[in-house]
Amino acid sequence: MKIATLSIGDELLLGEVVDTNAARVAARLADAGLAVGRHLTVGDDEREIAAAIELLARDHEAVIATGGLGPTDDDVTARATARATGRRLVLNEEAMAGLTAFFARRGREMHPANERQCLLPAKAGIVPNPTGTASGFHLVHEGCQFVFLPGVPAEMVRMLEESAVPLVLAQRKDRLRVRTKVLAVFGLSEAEIGARLTGIDRTRPGLTIAYCVEYPVVQVKLRAAGQSDGEIDTLLAEAIPLVRERLGDQIVAEDGDTIDTTVARLFRETGMTLALAESCTGGLVSKRITDVAGSSAYFLLGAVTYANGMKESLLGVPSHLLAEKGAVSAEVAKAMARGARRLAGSDLALAVTGIAGPEGGSSEKPVGTVFIALSDGSGCTVKVYHFSGQREQIRTITAVTAMDWLRRRLRTV
Amino acid sequence: MKIATLSIGDELLLGEVVDTNAARVAARLADAGLAVGRHLTVGDDEREIAAAIELLARDHEAVIATGGLGPTDDDVTARATARATGRRLVLNEEAMAGLTAFFARRGREMHPANERQCLLPAKAGIVPNPTGTASGFHLVHEGCQFVFLPGVPAEMVRMLEESAVPLVLAQRKDRLRVRTKVLAVFGLSEAEIGARLTGIDRTRPGLTIAYCVEYPVVQVKLRAAGQSDGEIDTLLAEAIPLVRERLGDQIVAEDGDTIDTTVARLFRETGMTLALAESCTGGLVSKRITDVAGSSAYFLLGAVTYANGMKESLLGVPSHLLAEKGAVSAEVAKAMARGARRLAGSDLALAVTGIAGPEGGSSEKPVGTVFIALSDGSGCTVKVYHFSGQREQIRTITAVTAMDWLRRRLRTV
Repeated sequence: MKIATLSIGDELLLGEVVDTNAARVAARLADAGLAVGRHLTVGDDEREIAAAIELLARDHEAVIATGGLGPTDDDVTARATARATGRRLVLNEEAMAGLTAFFARRGREMHPANERQCLLPAKAGIVPNPTGTASGFHLVHEGCQFVFLPGVPAEMVRMLEESAVPLVLAQRKDRLRVRTKVLAVFGLSEAEIGARLTGIDRTRPGLTIAYCVEYPVVQVKLRAAGQSDGEIDTLLAEAIPLVRERLGDQIVAEDGDTIDTTVARLFRETGMTLALAESCTGGLVSKRITDVAGSSAYFLLGAVTYANGMKESLLGVPSHLLAEKGAVSAEVAKAMARGARRLAGSDLALAVTGIAGPEGGSSEKPVGTVFIALSDGSGCTVKVYHFSGQREQIRTITAVTAMDWLRRRLRTV
Repeated sequence: MKIATLSIGDELLLGEVVDTNAARVAARLADAGLAVGRHLTVGDDEREIAAAIELLARDHEAVIATGGLGPTDDDVTARATARATGRRLVLNEEAMAGLTAFFARRGREMHPANERQCLLPAKAGIVPNPTGTASGFHLVHEGCQFVFLPGVPAEMVRMLEESAVPLVLAQRKDRLRVRTKVLAVFGLSEAEIGARLTGIDRTRPGLTIAYCVEYPVVQVKLRAAGQSDGEIDTLLAEAIPLVRERLGDQIVAEDGDTIDTTVARLFRETGMTLALAESCTGGLVSKRITDVAGSSAYFLLGAVTYANGMKESLLGVPSHLLAEKGAVSAEVAKAMARGARRLAGSDLALAVTGIAGPEGGSSEKPVGTVFIALSDGSGCTVKVYHFSGQREQIRTITAVTAMDWLRRRLRTV
């Protein structure tokens, strides 16, 4: 079934508002096994909207449109639809009754401008809006099912669920279903992952593998399409073990999880506690740990020791180490981790020291040189990395690498 | 000039990713006085992309497209463009040289899959990508200037600024110039700002005021359009003082600056030093301070004391205060600020303690209750806030409020 979505609003074309409705509608349809083939955005312009309706009707069996149903002069979706479909604009009695009831329930007087919202194309069906004044409507034009919803996200989402999705499903002739499995991968580039997974989808009709980079993590999406749940189960049951085998321990999270929530879950499951000593990441690792609600149960202390004096006085890093090896060194990273662990009395302590740039690099230790150390009851591990990119990227990949150290360490508990 | 934008990616049509690129491109073009008339999204499908190119070329003078330039099999934008424009796909020497240099700079081996990214339509011009492997390209088809950029936002934004906007502007035939003055406002809602600025643009043809919310900051954009620089100068010279007068000290940054870079500049100018003690923000304020390069000159210490024990042992918060007043209290906030200042020996110390939720609230101290304290040589100020929203929003507005405290304090130095 070929479906399109249409967003209507000047604010979208001016970039003043990010179009979250398009993604929400698409995600809801995908969950129902309906794939959106094209999305179009036009402004609050009668001619443009009418042209969009004609264009989409030509190639699609269903269109879900959002926006332009408000009470003000710049809301022209209904008028444009009447024009495109060769219908008159009439006062819709059902919409009017709904609007009157809406205001009565709230004990409010109806503003005359709201009446405008009941002027809809002749013979359109009503999509009730339980939480707002903009009635939705639906009609079939040139064999294509059009559903028009208001742009206010909260109203739209409810009407999508209660009316629009059932209307489109009723129109569907095929029975294709789709399910997606998501694996978050860290430590391999998109190209490297693509090379490792070569062939898995080519030999399996119905299976596609897509990649989505959320630097420095790559989301690998296995999408299985089939006529039945059983067919999809089989496709995924075959593909997932192959993908796991080829990506192994580089898979850091699955489905709704991120590396941060995976680490949080491992802390909760193991009962371990954490202290952090950060230099170049400047609180970024602490922020990621505390982004997850409930982190106070295991996160005892984060020490952002930007100044060398603080590394000495607070974490007990010996001044001779700082003088001889420099603040960015394996020795100092280890001393920071040990010091943080002692200070907080935590099970684990992780330390980060490095040069995020753009200043501060040298030929011996260029920008991007980062030491990460992890101290526990039995010892202290340290490793040097040479990251590339801008300051922001170096800090981000350092923080994710630190999270990955915690993930790997906690899995051995 | 009729401009369209085109986003390419299955993840967009599946609703897995919200299309922020479309809004970013549109906003940047609007700042340059160029209005987007239509936006289209298609999947990673050769036929669909080719159809979109043909469709948009018919009615537009310029198209900026994003996405589908990655190294894997599902990236087919270049191939589709070759098909739509009747060109061969050739290995572009300039793109190849750029990619080789990119890997050389990073000291990394180039993966063979990356070579695929240099297969571009014959005679396309290159849009250099300084921060990634996907080269952009541009070509004119049926009188329409097409510019193709990668979908990775950080790479896209830079290439848009450096190459795509100049390419489109060069194509423009009319002589209307536009300049935009941006003022970042904190502490007022979009509606409140709109009410304060009423009338300023209505009486001045050529001047428009637009708002763009980057929670919790609102960007106020004064766009002046005219036939000459002099005309634009006059418009802005009249409007800016009026806007400043009506928004006063709520303006926290201007033009390329943010509240974070404004605070950084004030620290450099005053020579003051800083320590932070964070509880509910968990390192977020430290992160914002250290996002700015050179912050090591004034940022001595950030202590993320999530656990009460750490507030006692590290910052010297008296245990009876914690027991009697609770960790989220004016008294503890002040003791944290004083303790951090003593520990670091800094000129200023700022402390944050609060309840970010979703758990931990009570009727007396509901989720969103936050205390901020600032200690300097002469005393310690504290204030309570009652923020609303989700955990993420509460943490963000708390961090921005803390930055605003620093901004206001440093301006009095």
